[in-house]
Amino acid sequence: MTPGPLRGVLAPVVTPFSAGLAPDPARFQRHCAWLLASGCAGLAVFGTNSEANSLGQQERMDLLEGLVASGVDPARLIPGTGCCSLPETVALSAHAAALGCHGVLMLPPFYYKGVSEEGLFRSYSEVIQRVGDARLRIWLYHIPPVSAVPIPPALVERLLKAYPGTIAGVKDSGGDWANTAALLEYAGLGLEVFAGSEVFLLRTMRAGGAGCITAGANVNPAAIDQVFRRWREPEAEALQAGIDRVRTILQSHGPMIPALKAVVAHFAGDPAWRTVRPPLEELPENQAGALVRDLLAAGFAMPGL
Amino acid sequence: MTPGPLRGVLAPVVTPFSAGLAPDPARFQRHCAWLLASGCAGLAVFGTNSEANSLGQQERMDLLEGLVASGVDPARLIPGTGCCSLPETVALSAHAAALGCHGVLMLPPFYYKGVSEEGLFRSYSEVIQRVGDARLRIWLYHIPPVSAVPIPPALVERLLKAYPGTIAGVKDSGGDWANTAALLEYAGLGLEVFAGSEVFLLRTMRAGGAGCITAGANVNPAAIDQVFRRWREPEAEALQAGIDRVRTILQSHGPMIPALKAVVAHFAGDPAWRTVRPPLEELPENQAGALVRDLLAAGFAMPGL
Repeated sequence: MTPGPLRGVLAPVVTPFSAGLAPDPARFQRHCAWLLASGCAGLAVFGTNSEANSLGQQERMDLLEGLVASGVDPARLIPGTGCCSLPETVALSAHAAALGCHGVLMLPPFYYKGVSEEGLFRSYSEVIQRVGDARLRIWLYHIPPVSAVPIPPALVERLLKAYPGTIAGVKDSGGDWANTAALLEYAGLGLEVFAGSEVFLLRTMRAGGAGCITAGANVNPAAIDQVFRRWREPEAEALQAGIDRVRTILQSHGPMIPALKAVVAHFAGDPAWRTVRPPLEELPENQAGALVRDLLAAGFAMPGL
Repeated sequence: MTPGPLRGVLAPVVTPFSAGLAPDPARFQRHCAWLLASGCAGLAVFGTNSEANSLGQQERMDLLEGLVASGVDPARLIPGTGCCSLPETVALSAHAAALGCHGVLMLPPFYYKGVSEEGLFRSYSEVIQRVGDARLRIWLYHIPPVSAVPIPPALVERLLKAYPGTIAGVKDSGGDWANTAALLEYAGLGLEVFAGSEVFLLRTMRAGGAGCITAGANVNPAAIDQVFRRWREPEAEALQAGIDRVRTILQSHGPMIPALKAVVAHFAGDPAWRTVRPPLEELPENQAGALVRDLLAAGFAMPGL
């Protein structure tokens, strides 16, 4: 049985930490509930913006189990599971599939650079075979600016043809529209293409894509969802321009992850949200203040947070 | 009690795999024993050339425990323990310290790029505090061509001054002599500097370094050890030229890790050694043959393997 599609806006949920840098399941679950109530179709927990690569295997499993236990339908979850090491990727992917998650978002192994397409094909193949669960559905995660290991369209096509029931889609966070356009050519083969930033959402929808999985959805889900829902309407361009403006402000006062956490901290009235795990640093007070001022001046709000 | 120094040639030991891609402890232990009998002062198991970043936490722990149980003195071991995730780096480092290892070789967290010096300082600090074991001694692992996260000399100095009993040294695999020279300025503060390739060994020794931790030591340990032992003698330049020639051949027929494994496979008469874990690929038969022919033509041998 093929699960129904999960289209629209997905958030790579920011992960809250205690002062002692432990993951904070209560704040995490509250933020997830707010996102799902505010326009997110689903949650790509444990993405790049979740600081997932600073989390241990058990920490991820505990957060995911807690989230499902809190009442979130696993059919709305696509957790990130791609690690450097084969056994860890297998363990996390098997765990997510067994929990009933809609799918997983899978980075390629990213320590070794300059690896061949054949080597990456074998890597994904080995994971699929070791998990050995027909419920496993994989979204390939292309994010060369961070991973430094691209997943070229030819590899996506090869994997899609080799594992048609398992390779479900791709998240393109490369920032290069030509690459996204090349991936959208495979939509006819069933590939669901998610833009990696809301700035490409309208173009992605017009070209047959499935939505976006984007950092900005952590703070601006309702407006981004409007672009998804109304992309065929005359207002779509203006709606896209609106979410672009917010994205530009989000990016203008420091690195994205601490910026998102500063925004959540402000609008939730909860300064604990600013904490990040090393090697990241929280946004300095003055930058966080300037970011919030610019957002408020643009009429930005997070109703219900 | 400060442990005695471990100077000389250390091998980042290649990790053998079964046909099913499981780590092979028996072959691993045999190769380690040969290395220690053939000129290696110690073993930097679980380095880049060990495919360690393709191994899971438990796989690393099992291999390390098996190696010590096989009779290798842990005082000759500096296992790699640096992972992306804080808990995994802490667990592996605590495990190595508890086993009595001489130290650990620690990559910075390497998923997030462009992180600040302050963020990396906090990362190492957090690991040191969480391990909380006075036996822990850290060699910082600078390998920007692979990790894409450099450890600049200023950060090395800051860590050395903040944790003088814990920060023991650095492996510089950046390939940039100016960086190694900058690090050697801290030798007076007790920093042990290892070159990341034997091609820099003579220069490193002349400038007050401790030796080298190098891929080439997997196959050519005796000759590299001669450069270490005789660097003050007139023959040193000729000995260095000899190990440079072998290194050049090793690099001339494909990527280093499958090349090393092809060489071990040939000279051990054991084709199983050629297996690598994805995303790497074994060297094609014709390239492996050409590599071995060039080595034999240069008079290369691996006596006692």
